[in-house]
Amino acid sequence: MCEKARRNDLIFRPHFKTHQSKKVGEWFRQEGVEAITVSSLGMATYFAEAGWKEITVAFPVNLLQIDVINALASHATVNLLADDRDVIVELDSMLTYKVHLFIEIDSGGGRTGIPHSDLKRISSMVATVTAADNINLKGFYTHAGHSYDARSKDDIRKVFSRTVQCMQEVRQWAESNDLNVEFCMGDTPGCSVGERFDEIDAISPGNFVFYDVMQTIIGSCADDQIAVAMACPVVSKNAGSNDVCIYGGAVHFSKDSIEDGQKKIFGMVVRLGSNGWSEPLEGCFVKSLSQEHGIVHLSAEEFEQTKIGDVLGVLPVHSCLTAEAMGVYRNFNGELIDHYAQKNRD
Amino acid sequence: MCEKARRNDLIFRPHFKTHQSKKVGEWFRQEGVEAITVSSLGMATYFAEAGWKEITVAFPVNLLQIDVINALASHATVNLLADDRDVIVELDSMLTYKVHLFIEIDSGGGRTGIPHSDLKRISSMVATVTAADNINLKGFYTHAGHSYDARSKDDIRKVFSRTVQCMQEVRQWAESNDLNVEFCMGDTPGCSVGERFDEIDAISPGNFVFYDVMQTIIGSCADDQIAVAMACPVVSKNAGSNDVCIYGGAVHFSKDSIEDGQKKIFGMVVRLGSNGWSEPLEGCFVKSLSQEHGIVHLSAEEFEQTKIGDVLGVLPVHSCLTAEAMGVYRNFNGELIDHYAQKNRD
Repeated sequence: MCEKARRNDLIFRPHFKTHQSKKVGEWFRQEGVEAITVSSLGMATYFAEAGWKEITVAFPVNLLQIDVINALASHATVNLLADDRDVIVELDSMLTYKVHLFIEIDSGGGRTGIPHSDLKRISSMVATVTAADNINLKGFYTHAGHSYDARSKDDIRKVFSRTVQCMQEVRQWAESNDLNVEFCMGDTPGCSVGERFDEIDAISPGNFVFYDVMQTIIGSCADDQIAVAMACPVVSKNAGSNDVCIYGGAVHFSKDSIEDGQKKIFGMVVRLGSNGWSEPLEGCFVKSLSQEHGIVHLSAEEFEQTKIGDVLGVLPVHSCLTAEAMGVYRNFNGELIDHYAQKNRD
Repeated sequence: MCEKARRNDLIFRPHFKTHQSKKVGEWFRQEGVEAITVSSLGMATYFAEAGWKEITVAFPVNLLQIDVINALASHATVNLLADDRDVIVELDSMLTYKVHLFIEIDSGGGRTGIPHSDLKRISSMVATVTAADNINLKGFYTHAGHSYDARSKDDIRKVFSRTVQCMQEVRQWAESNDLNVEFCMGDTPGCSVGERFDEIDAISPGNFVFYDVMQTIIGSCADDQIAVAMACPVVSKNAGSNDVCIYGGAVHFSKDSIEDGQKKIFGMVVRLGSNGWSEPLEGCFVKSLSQEHGIVHLSAEEFEQTKIGDVLGVLPVHSCLTAEAMGVYRNFNGELIDHYAQKNRD
């Protein structure tokens, strides 16, 4: 992704919400990354502690956290997101340090942001930001969350092209109004598959750092690009159904699932080695999760070879949520790697 | 639930996996509860620290955690669960302190346990436990997880009656073999709605302590029996759809959902007061969750009345997972209440 950003002359503001790790962040720094994106002010504070100087908080500004915003802005360059004029007016009056602002654009995802075609509201928003004393207009930001509905590279390409086009339309309006600001987009499917970033200045994907089962089904990546797996002990076998119960449930994986053909799955199954893992095992998948239990369906052959006490690897459906639920990583050297959501427990 | 246990002359071993709180545990102690149930050894250790002397770990024994088992068994009465003979043999050889064992029975849930009708395997399991040096047969345990498929009190009653009947059949076999042991069952729907606990000795429900939206839809409880809500700031409004975005996503709620009529919902919406909350707001529900964002659909009237910066209450679909994701509670006096999964962060 670093290489792709360089090749397309894009500012790369990787989203750190997936790994949430200072250590993993260092690997990005070694690639020359200088600015990052996060999804909460707490996460921003965590990474500011690690020396990151420019942090975009890609979540609509929550005025109830003004004290955290001011604390953060006192020693880092903070880019906030908003889609509402009243919020800007109130924010401006509460700031004790200057911040930068991306106006959020809804390019079709429908979650948050001003619809890209609503130039009247965009114009009014720009005027409000421009009039603010403590807020500098950084640019426009969009997250094409609807790329997650894709089920092939072609589907992704369509959403990606349309997203770029939406941003181009806003850009044309901006340029005709002498606004020279940054246009940033951020979804992992689009940034993984898209090739022509015309008139986009910056990208901020996050999930690509690990990918996950969902991304393979969307079409963003191949199975062997998934970079995290959960090690789950087998604690019970059900010979009637070829199911095994693993110690690995909703509190460990969170509870995201995805349709894989006709099946709803909560993870794919791999054999763990000393320095990696196998391809996903044919005919094997996590079929349900309760609080601490995971039920894994195995092929007859794999069921036969699996004993209680064995440790199976599970590729998560949604790596961001699984990493958050676990609060720590272990690499193949046995070293622990930090996560912002570290818990006070084993 | 305490009163129901007393009335039916049942040992009450409440499952603490829902609240996971020492403070909430004290409230049970004040009701005379002396033995508890948990879903992990870590949780067992947490509650042993709070002085609980008899703890059932209602999860198939994980031999990879033998050190935790031995540490716990050195100072508390520990009841483990298993459904496999080889595990018993291995466990027995690894124990440095004596433990008690419930043989897990599958009464139709199909998750773990020996099918109740497989008396041959049950008999062989009993013989193995009886022959073990460090394991005392405590009894038989079943979790009728299929009660979660119910959608009415009548549905629940059917699963409950069938579960009691399964346990009675095992009990008849046990008594004819001069085994005088305990029969325990644990699901919240069944224990909430069921009335005739004939030949059941003990119950271990957990979720009833808070209940949640899922339990209201199953038929276990009424809306006004839900005892936890999440306070979520509104950060964006979408006038086109009457949706608002709240700061409250999958990392806060986990990602369980349930079908409510034709809709898939991730929570119900209430107005928060200074000492409680309103009934669920008609026509309002959490319609989707991403990592930190929640999208709440509001009725036209509620949308009109809701401003960015307001705090909405959300009743969670699955209170156990939401409590685990948050790792702490706050009561209406502003006091924090502990949770085992407390995180090292805001």
